[in-house]
Amino acid sequence: MNKSALQLARAAYQPKLPKGLQGVVNLKAGKATQSVGDQEEIKKLFPNTYGLPLVEFVPSEGEQDDVNPKMNVGVILSGGQAPGGHNVICGIFDRVKRLNPDNKLYGFLLGPSGLVDHKYVELTADIIDEYRNTGGFDIIGSGRTKLEETSQFESGLEIIRQLDIKAVVIIGGDDSNTNACVLAEYYLANKTGVQVIGCPKTIDGDLKNDQIETSFGFDTACKTYSELIGNIERDANSAKKYWHFIKLMGRSASHIALECALETQPNICLISEEIQEKNMTLDDIVADMAATIAARAEKGDNYGVALIPEGLIEFIPAVKKLIAELNDLLSSEEYMADAPADRIEWLNKHLSADNAPVFSSLPRVFAEQLTGERDPHGNVQVSLIETEKLLAEMVAKKLDDMKAAGQFKGKFAAQHHFFGYEGRCAAPSNFDADYCYALGTSAAELIARGKTGYMAIVKNTTAPAEEWKAGGVPITMMMNMERRNGKMKPVIRKALVELEGKPFKAFAAKRDEWKKNTCYTYPGPIQYWGPTEVCDRTTETLALEQSK
Amino acid sequence: MNKSALQLARAAYQPKLPKGLQGVVNLKAGKATQSVGDQEEIKKLFPNTYGLPLVEFVPSEGEQDDVNPKMNVGVILSGGQAPGGHNVICGIFDRVKRLNPDNKLYGFLLGPSGLVDHKYVELTADIIDEYRNTGGFDIIGSGRTKLEETSQFESGLEIIRQLDIKAVVIIGGDDSNTNACVLAEYYLANKTGVQVIGCPKTIDGDLKNDQIETSFGFDTACKTYSELIGNIERDANSAKKYWHFIKLMGRSASHIALECALETQPNICLISEEIQEKNMTLDDIVADMAATIAARAEKGDNYGVALIPEGLIEFIPAVKKLIAELNDLLSSEEYMADAPADRIEWLNKHLSADNAPVFSSLPRVFAEQLTGERDPHGNVQVSLIETEKLLAEMVAKKLDDMKAAGQFKGKFAAQHHFFGYEGRCAAPSNFDADYCYALGTSAAELIARGKTGYMAIVKNTTAPAEEWKAGGVPITMMMNMERRNGKMKPVIRKALVELEGKPFKAFAAKRDEWKKNTCYTYPGPIQYWGPTEVCDRTTETLALEQSK
Repeated sequence: MNKSALQLARAAYQPKLPKGLQGVVNLKAGKATQSVGDQEEIKKLFPNTYGLPLVEFVPSEGEQDDVNPKMNVGVILSGGQAPGGHNVICGIFDRVKRLNPDNKLYGFLLGPSGLVDHKYVELTADIIDEYRNTGGFDIIGSGRTKLEETSQFESGLEIIRQLDIKAVVIIGGDDSNTNACVLAEYYLANKTGVQVIGCPKTIDGDLKNDQIETSFGFDTACKTYSELIGNIERDANSAKKYWHFIKLMGRSASHIALECALETQPNICLISEEIQEKNMTLDDIVADMAATIAARAEKGDNYGVALIPEGLIEFIPAVKKLIAELNDLLSSEEYMADAPADRIEWLNKHLSADNAPVFSSLPRVFAEQLTGERDPHGNVQVSLIETEKLLAEMVAKKLDDMKAAGQFKGKFAAQHHFFGYEGRCAAPSNFDADYCYALGTSAAELIARGKTGYMAIVKNTTAPAEEWKAGGVPITMMMNMERRNGKMKPVIRKALVELEGKPFKAFAAKRDEWKKNTCYTYPGPIQYWGPTEVCDRTTETLALEQSK
Repeated sequence: MNKSALQLARAAYQPKLPKGLQGVVNLKAGKATQSVGDQEEIKKLFPNTYGLPLVEFVPSEGEQDDVNPKMNVGVILSGGQAPGGHNVICGIFDRVKRLNPDNKLYGFLLGPSGLVDHKYVELTADIIDEYRNTGGFDIIGSGRTKLEETSQFESGLEIIRQLDIKAVVIIGGDDSNTNACVLAEYYLANKTGVQVIGCPKTIDGDLKNDQIETSFGFDTACKTYSELIGNIERDANSAKKYWHFIKLMGRSASHIALECALETQPNICLISEEIQEKNMTLDDIVADMAATIAARAEKGDNYGVALIPEGLIEFIPAVKKLIAELNDLLSSEEYMADAPADRIEWLNKHLSADNAPVFSSLPRVFAEQLTGERDPHGNVQVSLIETEKLLAEMVAKKLDDMKAAGQFKGKFAAQHHFFGYEGRCAAPSNFDADYCYALGTSAAELIARGKTGYMAIVKNTTAPAEEWKAGGVPITMMMNMERRNGKMKPVIRKALVELEGKPFKAFAAKRDEWKKNTCYTYPGPIQYWGPTEVCDRTTETLALEQSK
């Protein structure tokens, strides 16, 4: 591997551990738990892993628990990359080796399919040392295969037996951790003796609840995007001639957009959850944005920055309705029979009176993006719409109308950006490096104590790392029943932005000033060395949520 | 101003100065100089500023030169933003105040037009302290007005007289510095006593020659882009399912793309200058890329990263010819008379036999981008073409053909990125912070010594800052005559990538390996603190060019 100067220097960083995971480690168990909803159904589906207690690792003066018999562990990276995944694996490795130098750690390759297809590698010290404090999931690769079928569980069991593996750690988001719990339940019900432990990963920030303060990677990804947004704000404020429309990854939830807004104080930041709550139309959004742009132009400020969450379009109730009808129409017999030369024209004629105006309000190129290629289920692909361009184009049109009506006297020129891949594999911040290493260490200790169906957790994360509290949460505790593809399923409740939560309220309290004035903040790049207030800062979201 | 933790901490950084600018400063003059070309013409055009000697500031044990009479200075930021512009201004400020605390520094607002239109602000210590070591040009704003007309010079002179300004510093690229020299000559010829000093700015890296080792901002911008490219490479190498096509700013020259390639070792990096030299067609480029993709797919690697310089399209000789004919056709009487409903179809019929196939090889959406909006001179706008998408689309088509012919068995899915605004206003690296502060300090010392028509320079920049050599170069020395808009003009020769230069040769020696194998390097974000090999590194380009 070719290493940059930073990577070489950063390899020497020793992540900090909470006191409870240093020295002698003991486990304190709390009371039995309940799921956050649908207790009866969840209990019925998870008879063996339901109701387990929360557990915490506590510093101890006494003897070490006797947890050192030889054990092998397997680890899987599931889903999209998030900074710090390598450090979770390093944490597991270091702790299983401390527990017993003969212990082995196996990595299943390219995600959950590695377990099913028996593709794996033994992670030795040589390999591990190449990946300490680095970004990416390239140590073993990741993948999106879902572990849901009994045949997969059984196939996995074969290789688990062959490698004498005691437990599998699944590092993933809400769905992957739900599946980890299903797997834990299956292996327990079938008395295989194989344990399964989850780890809360996702840059999107939507795996978060009373037990999980933050998912790993959110800190680093948001800081990387905020660096870029801050640089663009400074450019906007220097050149004074462009509006920058910036779309940000984050799937459904707007956590990333909100965090970046708190970090950079842009003129506009759309929050999907609020747009849905207020039942806003696409035209409402466009009119709001145009009004902000016109108000700034009044002061001579023909520039600005607007943040747009990736999932926006599906949170606009009217667009959601339109999409449902488009899915129906495009798979209808009438459409097939007509095989129209002009798809858009045909749809304009056949859409219901409610949906037709919404569709015809879309500039043609976006109507084409939306109704062109469909996914394997025959659904239109919302993700193909370049929302940042769609909004800029519709805003430009609205401003033209306003200009004709004498309501806008300025200039409007837009630049577009979409940030996602730029941050998912950044080298983890000190926070994520420490947090992930502690999560991995916790996972290893949970395994050594025979736990299964747990997720490794670390709390009190706004305090210095020494004071963090590591432990485990029964995955069933975070579950409820939700409809997925037409069926009720046990799932970990996904955390969207709460409009009553402190981060949103902090944003809402300031955004009017940010709109009018230029209040940009320039966070700059992540620093690994230097003053602690620079290099050990948490996200604004976490600081606000954990504030008293 | 709202300040981030980094900005607050970074404000305290004291840029390092070369020994020659510390303590007692004295000036050593070299021999008379000549322009790099067309000596007779240049001498005729610049009778007063031609042939001046190179000068260098040298550390001295003796007495300070007597250079302390009161003087006021004006400063202008010209053209696109580049990291470090604020530090040039801080360097000027600190030194004019050290020379005499009664000296004043005025900033002309929003570029050269501030001088012409008498828009200015006095830069006081309070203001300056807000901008130390920050990115952006927002302290006084920038603009693209060209100083070329006598009326502008005369209007500028009015405000210069009014503010009792002794000298104006113009911080800009090659064109701005050419104009600075014209202004210097004019003020000298007219015995106004007003001096003009230039400063070498541009992230594009094309203002570079025997006297100017690098233009400021290139270091920080390239490092910011390389951070993002490295992150994307790590994502590509983790997910193993996308080819990322990344376009990079840089105008005509491919210096930024080349530097980023040396930093990150991508699978493909196109160099416009080489494509022109080899007389490659668009189809040649597409075929080359497709061959690389197919070769990686053979090994099971259906992913990769390709860097594309912004200026590429105009360096493809066949496309350049096509564009010339399109400009003619679209402004022809025949076109106007026909007013065709389908522009593309009309053009396909009317283009010459040479150019028609090139035009029809463009996917329709790009043919439309190219021939849609024209610029104020009636020319097609090449910059509207999204080259990164054009290439990805053409490569996909080529790979489909290869698949049909059994020459490609892999998968190809592309993601697109364009980086430019993300780096132009980044907070300057330690290198740019020091370099710019030294340039500003040099400029102030040149002014105190009555110099005009000079550019401030700093050499020996791969050594520690203490050993740098600061001084000035007569701007005429870097000039030759070139055709611009049909007229021969004196201009500073623009530096394109030299195919015989060390940076290109270092790239060319390794790129075949980078194509086949995955040799990615992940530079990570710019560090301001930490090990010196991390935070004080120069660009690879500079290190290679200055290597013996």
